[in-house]
Amino acid sequence: MQTPKKIAIVGSGLVGTLLAIYLKKQGHTVHVFDRSPDIRTVEFSGRSINLVMSNRGWKTLQDIGLEHEIKKIGIPVDKRAIHLQDDKLNYQYYGKDGEAIFSLSRGVLNRKMIDLAENAGAEFFFNRKIWDVSLATATLYEGETEQGEWTELKYDLVFGADGAFSRIRHRMQRQSMFDYSQEFMKLGYKELHIPANTDGTHKIDKNSLHIWPRGNFMLMALANLDGSFTCTLFMPFEGENSFEQLKDEATLVSFFANYFPDTKEVIPDLVKDFFKNPTSYLAIMKCYPWAYQDKVALIGDSAHAIVPFYGHGMNAGFEDITILNEFILKFGDDWNTIFAEYQKSRKPNADAIAELSRRNFVEMSSKTADEKFLLQKKIEKWFSDKHPDKWMPLYSRVTFSLQPYSEALAIGDFQNKIMEEVMQIENIEQKWNSNEVEQKIISLLT
Amino acid sequence: MQTPKKIAIVGSGLVGTLLAIYLKKQGHTVHVFDRSPDIRTVEFSGRSINLVMSNRGWKTLQDIGLEHEIKKIGIPVDKRAIHLQDDKLNYQYYGKDGEAIFSLSRGVLNRKMIDLAENAGAEFFFNRKIWDVSLATATLYEGETEQGEWTELKYDLVFGADGAFSRIRHRMQRQSMFDYSQEFMKLGYKELHIPANTDGTHKIDKNSLHIWPRGNFMLMALANLDGSFTCTLFMPFEGENSFEQLKDEATLVSFFANYFPDTKEVIPDLVKDFFKNPTSYLAIMKCYPWAYQDKVALIGDSAHAIVPFYGHGMNAGFEDITILNEFILKFGDDWNTIFAEYQKSRKPNADAIAELSRRNFVEMSSKTADEKFLLQKKIEKWFSDKHPDKWMPLYSRVTFSLQPYSEALAIGDFQNKIMEEVMQIENIEQKWNSNEVEQKIISLLT
Repeated sequence: MQTPKKIAIVGSGLVGTLLAIYLKKQGHTVHVFDRSPDIRTVEFSGRSINLVMSNRGWKTLQDIGLEHEIKKIGIPVDKRAIHLQDDKLNYQYYGKDGEAIFSLSRGVLNRKMIDLAENAGAEFFFNRKIWDVSLATATLYEGETEQGEWTELKYDLVFGADGAFSRIRHRMQRQSMFDYSQEFMKLGYKELHIPANTDGTHKIDKNSLHIWPRGNFMLMALANLDGSFTCTLFMPFEGENSFEQLKDEATLVSFFANYFPDTKEVIPDLVKDFFKNPTSYLAIMKCYPWAYQDKVALIGDSAHAIVPFYGHGMNAGFEDITILNEFILKFGDDWNTIFAEYQKSRKPNADAIAELSRRNFVEMSSKTADEKFLLQKKIEKWFSDKHPDKWMPLYSRVTFSLQPYSEALAIGDFQNKIMEEVMQIENIEQKWNSNEVEQKIISLLT
Repeated sequence: MQTPKKIAIVGSGLVGTLLAIYLKKQGHTVHVFDRSPDIRTVEFSGRSINLVMSNRGWKTLQDIGLEHEIKKIGIPVDKRAIHLQDDKLNYQYYGKDGEAIFSLSRGVLNRKMIDLAENAGAEFFFNRKIWDVSLATATLYEGETEQGEWTELKYDLVFGADGAFSRIRHRMQRQSMFDYSQEFMKLGYKELHIPANTDGTHKIDKNSLHIWPRGNFMLMALANLDGSFTCTLFMPFEGENSFEQLKDEATLVSFFANYFPDTKEVIPDLVKDFFKNPTSYLAIMKCYPWAYQDKVALIGDSAHAIVPFYGHGMNAGFEDITILNEFILKFGDDWNTIFAEYQKSRKPNADAIAELSRRNFVEMSSKTADEKFLLQKKIEKWFSDKHPDKWMPLYSRVTFSLQPYSEALAIGDFQNKIMEEVMQIENIEQKWNSNEVEQKIISLLT
């Protein structure tokens, strides 16, 4: 156990609440602030993408005994269901038998996590706007408006778990030697909805991540416990096949009829949802350092906001907690060293998952519709099954292993070079599982 | 002439004041705000690097008839004087006969520019802190402190010429779809001073940019009109040969005696200046867009802060004004189009000079001490003199031409590939100006 401190966490999202539970376990006083109302008391926003929990996230929950509690509200997803434009449906399994990611509704999970953190003894302060922080003294400044009266709240430590648009990071940004970047995608997203059947069952396979890959845009759907699916349409803001073009009901309906014909039956409120729900932005934020002495540290999206195409935003944030906790166990009360080692260890991995996530849009929206790409994945899986000691596909490294993201990225690039050569083999379509291909891969590996 | 507008410029630096003169010429009401006191009434800061004006800067001054006025306070510099550690001195001419950049004291130039802008009718408001801007209404918020009372100042247009740490850009950064990055170098700098001789003459050659290249650090000196030199020591903050190490007088003196033996006579106040003057940071800031509708635009360092190693911060800022003015002349009162075309035209060039400047540290601090590099430059100059239609060295493109920076960078990279091959020729030291080399370059060019 550490010497008890008075700790503030800004942000009651997934990472903030789980961190609160970890810090309570160390005996600290933990106050969690959020500028929004208690999510348990309000409707969900209509701008969410369903989450997928994979091994890194489960590991963080498991270490604190919450894995089973959360698994109850998740739905295992072991494959992609790829809806081609000609109504053909392909399945692509993610890993080995039994390996699955879990679809979770962000709102349902967040509510659950706040309950759990409250049970653990963390105190929550909702509708409390933190506008600034004094880094040297771990003092928060709270008030109704940015220009109005502020109250000082003094802590021993402050964690900024306040997401991509973090106010805590915003203060750090105005320090010398603080590197920071924000980059907005030309692509936005909109939430749509597949309701449950009247008997509460799912209208399409609930154990698949459904993708309608259409090149520069795509639709995806992930199951909820109540029989519904949360769908997300990703497309450019401007240009060909863009949000800008879908301005009226007729255009929208004909666009969906053309590109997503098999959704007609399952998205009954397309028009209403499309024009009611906001079109949201996607951004990548990077920064360094993540901590100020032994006083303030960033964690989760505030330190490394990424795009959602690998399903790793939450997993990476939870893994931050795992690593932070390792250093807490190692260095005890020396918060200076804990924060220094934490940021040094996490930064290259945060950068790697940012890169992997960026690349995965192209994989999901284009490559999954490409026969050649599916064949490549099939060969990798076949070879990996035969030689598990020699080959783990990139997706499995990222999702089903705890290997640091930066290593997974480097090895993935190396493996990809090999597969590029393999795919050049004449008649690869016929002899993809031949001895020749096997030997070729083995020779390229050494 | 445009329809007269009420325009605010935030920042009374070099770009802000020159822009004020241009806008006055168009008949606008121009108010220039600065959070600092009038530089004409205070001592200089002791953290400046001398400026060098080159063709792009002169062009902007020339177009408004101020070239001769400013040339009077500059000193032509036609070469590098490279001080090697063994006291050997090499000269490397920048361009052709008569081609020179001009050394200018930042303070002296800035004072002069404010005088000129006042004469042109711009109104200056010093010690007035602008904390925020409403982008949609071009309203500035001014007050004593960030958290205190603010006064609203309504304008038709606002220019953010408020430098690398721009408050105007800071507001833009909190908009969606605004890309932004700040990156601090591991390298800092400190101003030192070579005083004039008692008779007012310069102690070392005033028409040279003096460099003491020492690998990961360097000293440089640029002449002032009063016989003195402004020196700048660039070195890492930490590690071997760093500011961190030069903690006391004895270490500093022995460091300079070892690495810069020939400065002993000319920098008499080394110890005093070194410990009095601050160690300053170097940062690269990039962003996009630069403008908000027809209301607010960034210009100069606020849009593109770069490192000083190409001597182009001011030149790039002045060129912003040239380009902006071209679109003013073309599009008249259509400020929406003026701003849109201005940012589209300038962004790739700002990115290019940022990259060129970053690379030039290595050229100045390491390559200028490398015989092979100096030979390469000699070959380029020789070939360029023989075939001016076929080859202009990169430095000349950037500094003595008005070619867009982005083109200069691309052609420079192409030329560098050619020179890499040329430098591989056996006995290139002996036959550098042979027919063989000439024909080789010609063949590689086509």
